[in-house]
Amino acid sequence: MSNSNSPLRVTVWNEYRHEQESERIRAVYPHGIHNSIAAPLRTAGFEVRTATLDEPDHGLGGDVLANTDVLVWWGHKVHELVSDAIAEQVVQRVWAGMGLIVLHSGHFSKPFKRLMGTGCDLKWREAGERERIWIVEPGHPIAQGLPEQIVLEHEEMYGEHFDIPAPDELVMVSWFQGGEIFRSGCCYHRGQGKIFYFRPGHESFPTYEHPHVQQVIANAVRWAAPSGLENVVRGHIPVAAEELEVYES
Amino acid sequence: MSNSNSPLRVTVWNEYRHEQESERIRAVYPHGIHNSIAAPLRTAGFEVRTATLDEPDHGLGGDVLANTDVLVWWGHKVHELVSDAIAEQVVQRVWAGMGLIVLHSGHFSKPFKRLMGTGCDLKWREAGERERIWIVEPGHPIAQGLPEQIVLEHEEMYGEHFDIPAPDELVMVSWFQGGEIFRSGCCYHRGQGKIFYFRPGHESFPTYEHPHVQQVIANAVRWAAPSGLENVVRGHIPVAAEELEVYES
Amino acid sequence: MSNSNSPLRVTVWNEYRHEQESERIRAVYPHGIHNSIAAPLRTAGFEVRTATLDEPDHGLGGDVLANTDVLVWWGHKVHELVSDAIAEQVVQRVWAGMGLIVLHSGHFSKPFKRLMGTGCDLKWREAGERERIWIVEPGHPIAQGLPEQIVLEHEEMYGEHFDIPAPDELVMVSWFQGGEIFRSGCCYHRGQGKIFYFRPGHESFPTYEHPHVQQVIANAVRWAAPSGLENVVRGHIPVAAEELEVYES
Amino acid sequence: MSNSNSPLRVTVWNEYRHEQESERIRAVYPHGIHNSIAAPLRTAGFEVRTATLDEPDHGLGGDVLANTDVLVWWGHKVHELVSDAIAEQVVQRVWAGMGLIVLHSGHFSKPFKRLMGTGCDLKWREAGERERIWIVEPGHPIAQGLPEQIVLEHEEMYGEHFDIPAPDELVMVSWFQGGEIFRSGCCYHRGQGKIFYFRPGHESFPTYEHPHVQQVIANAVRWAAPSGLENVVRGHIPVAAEELEVYES
Repeated sequence: MSNSNSPLRVTVWNEYRHEQESERIRAVYPHGIHNSIAAPLRTAGFEVRTATLDEPDHGLGGDVLANTDVLVWWGHKVHELVSDAIAEQVVQRVWAGMGLIVLHSGHFSKPFKRLMGTGCDLKWREAGERERIWIVEPGHPIAQGLPEQIVLEHEEMYGEHFDIPAPDELVMVSWFQGGEIFRSGCCYHRGQGKIFYFRPGHESFPTYEHPHVQQVIANAVRWAAPSGLENVVRGHIPVAAEELEVYES
Repeated sequence: MSNSNSPLRVTVWNEYRHEQESERIRAVYPHGIHNSIAAPLRTAGFEVRTATLDEPDHGLGGDVLANTDVLVWWGHKVHELVSDAIAEQVVQRVWAGMGLIVLHSGHFSKPFKRLMGTGCDLKWREAGERERIWIVEPGHPIAQGLPEQIVLEHEEMYGEHFDIPAPDELVMVSWFQGGEIFRSGCCYHRGQGKIFYFRPGHESFPTYEHPHVQQVIANAVRWAAPSGLENVVRGHIPVAAEELEVYES
Repeated sequence: MSNSNSPLRVTVWNEYRHEQESERIRAVYPHGIHNSIAAPLRTAGFEVRTATLDEPDHGLGGDVLANTDVLVWWGHKVHELVSDAIAEQVVQRVWAGMGLIVLHSGHFSKPFKRLMGTGCDLKWREAGERERIWIVEPGHPIAQGLPEQIVLEHEEMYGEHFDIPAPDELVMVSWFQGGEIFRSGCCYHRGQGKIFYFRPGHESFPTYEHPHVQQVIANAVRWAAPSGLENVVRGHIPVAAEELEVYES
Repeated sequence: MSNSNSPLRVTVWNEYRHEQESERIRAVYPHGIHNSIAAPLRTAGFEVRTATLDEPDHGLGGDVLANTDVLVWWGHKVHELVSDAIAEQVVQRVWAGMGLIVLHSGHFSKPFKRLMGTGCDLKWREAGERERIWIVEPGHPIAQGLPEQIVLEHEEMYGEHFDIPAPDELVMVSWFQGGEIFRSGCCYHRGQGKIFYFRPGHESFPTYEHPHVQQVIANAVRWAAPSGLENVVRGHIPVAAEELEVYES
């Protein structure tokens, strides 16, 4: 954990393929989705680095994960190219206390599926329809400073059934113009780490430029920051703290 | 809500009868339980005032509640002397976002019972036995900086069934020497407010002088601080945001 | 609890004022909402009686509650006419194990508000708009035999924020044409009793004639049937089961 | 799902190595743990088969899983010998609605770890100490007909931190003589399936001959029986149910 007087250390990870392969997507995110997510987090006072799939070790090698308090994850079309070893390191770091913010199509990423224990499938439709993200837990820290709903004029639809465990805390539910709803802001604890799944952010819409979306991500980083026990004890405890009579089986 | 740069404003409420009526209890808490709870919270940087039952309006009149971010509550033998009006004001303030930390025998206080919607009864025994409070959600902010268990050499026993709703987050479970267990650190959301029930603190033991108990209360104050939406909308919404065809019933 | 070989004993309670005072509503429910709810429950094999506000003791006096396994509640415009004593008896019976199904505008009934510990307010609009009730916990017994969504062509809108505690299990979420969503199928435990809140059923629409709505209510009755321990122990336990050393305070 | 008039089809799976390799364990379970678990389930009216590690496909090949409503799992010392393919089939069947009862050291089995998304480690000690399993959700169907606590004179200790997600419903918490507590009865939903983890049952103690332990397992089988939607829809939904304007990106 970073010293409590130091800024939280955030790593924004992006698959970064759509933006390089498609002119249409590059027009939306000319510097990559990761940089559109990173910039407002820097403004919010965090220490932010970015990492992308095609860097060595996907930009997450060496001591990057060990020096990350909260990891933000965007991936979509080549989840299978993330190495099992790196995915496993992400999972292990979450269990050890690192926060993880999984965005949009990251629902099918290796780390998220592994941490949920479910299939993580859902309904989807690309029709540029309107989404209304309603806050259903209004006192939650992730709702700090938001209006009661965030309206995104054009987004990809995600619909239920979303195959996730019931969230520890359900903060947001989305309405879609085409008739679907979706649990779109979901909190989990896994080991000592905290996970927040946040639905919006299709690559063809400038969703991450929306100030309320940026506010949610910044709030989620604060919420997911490492906290709690320094030292969790598990394993063989041969001697009891309380006196036991001798047992002869 | 207090400005985010200002310290959180905490009010510690105590029934303050045992300490005045019993020499034995006064020996344990010579300045009242409220002052033993307040002092380490001041050291932790909060702005702390105290209030007691026998003050006018139980010390909670005027703008005290409106200017309280988190209320800490200790009561035991005369819960019924708390006026219904003040109890209702506490409940309303919690619904509006004020944090509430309910300690020990406060499980039977008017505000807690009203906010839980259950009977809040439990088992109890005064035998000065050992309690071990185990952290079961090690990454929770209320566990910040604690060891994996807090050992209290002498405490009153509280045992299950504790008649509460299943906590939104169960942070601690107690072991008692006499054979019982108890859900002893329980988080709830009610309206925009957060509630933490924390079991220990019988008046005849110096439990609130224990540094880890003090740490839990300070952590809980931070966790329960007001957060979330500025403005929650409910009531009649005659005009829909989305276009509707005219309906003739 | 009824003998496990006997049918569950269900009491359907209805305020029964709209149907008597308004010809328009009477046209929708000529025998009262209670009888439209009761009939399919009888077909499903339950032993069903009805009770209404204007009967002596609201039809819930004598041993009616003691002989009710699951109580279904519909009320709307005169919640305050339900006597505090009867409301308290309902609460006590739920705590003792009776199931409670609260329908639609029953969100503001005395028993429901008392059992939730929150304000239970919400957004509403009478525009005859379309509602889509989506199942979000597809393996839940209350979802037995249903399609993935229930479409009601015309209903009153209820919108978030719905001021309830986070459900122990969230089974359904509603989509409304006008832009709102709502947590519309919510499970709770209170004491030994189970509570299911189910949103639809405005008096001006024939919602309770819809076979899937009827199926939900029948499933909910089965889910909410009394279960668990015969005997819950609370109170003073002066002698510990495990040996304790003598403590001298 | 089996026809609702047919008995539930239960498969009891056992590693079945301790009983064959150790005379001491064989003396406790002469016919294997699986048969001690299966016999009372047959008496309870279920259709029960058994399967063990050393059978072809661990006894779970062909249509065994497809024809199993609830699978009971006991394993301990050679979890890694369960083939990845069979473990994956178990996970897939749970996601599709099969119930899973995981017993004792099954916490480290491949299917359970995969379904939890956590490390599933815990504290342990073999000292033959006393365990008291307390019911903390007294109205839960898994508590049906039980006393408020189950006392096991000699058991292996399991202690927190138990590295699992917070249960959807926490039904039981264990007290151990040596000073530890443990969340010992834990309910989860994963996909359409239900999972119950039940702590006791070390191979060297006749725990599965205890009538209350047998009652818990029978109750859990009924609770975990397949239920809910026949058909869950996910994937691409190109055409919306509600009319959408054409979107030109």
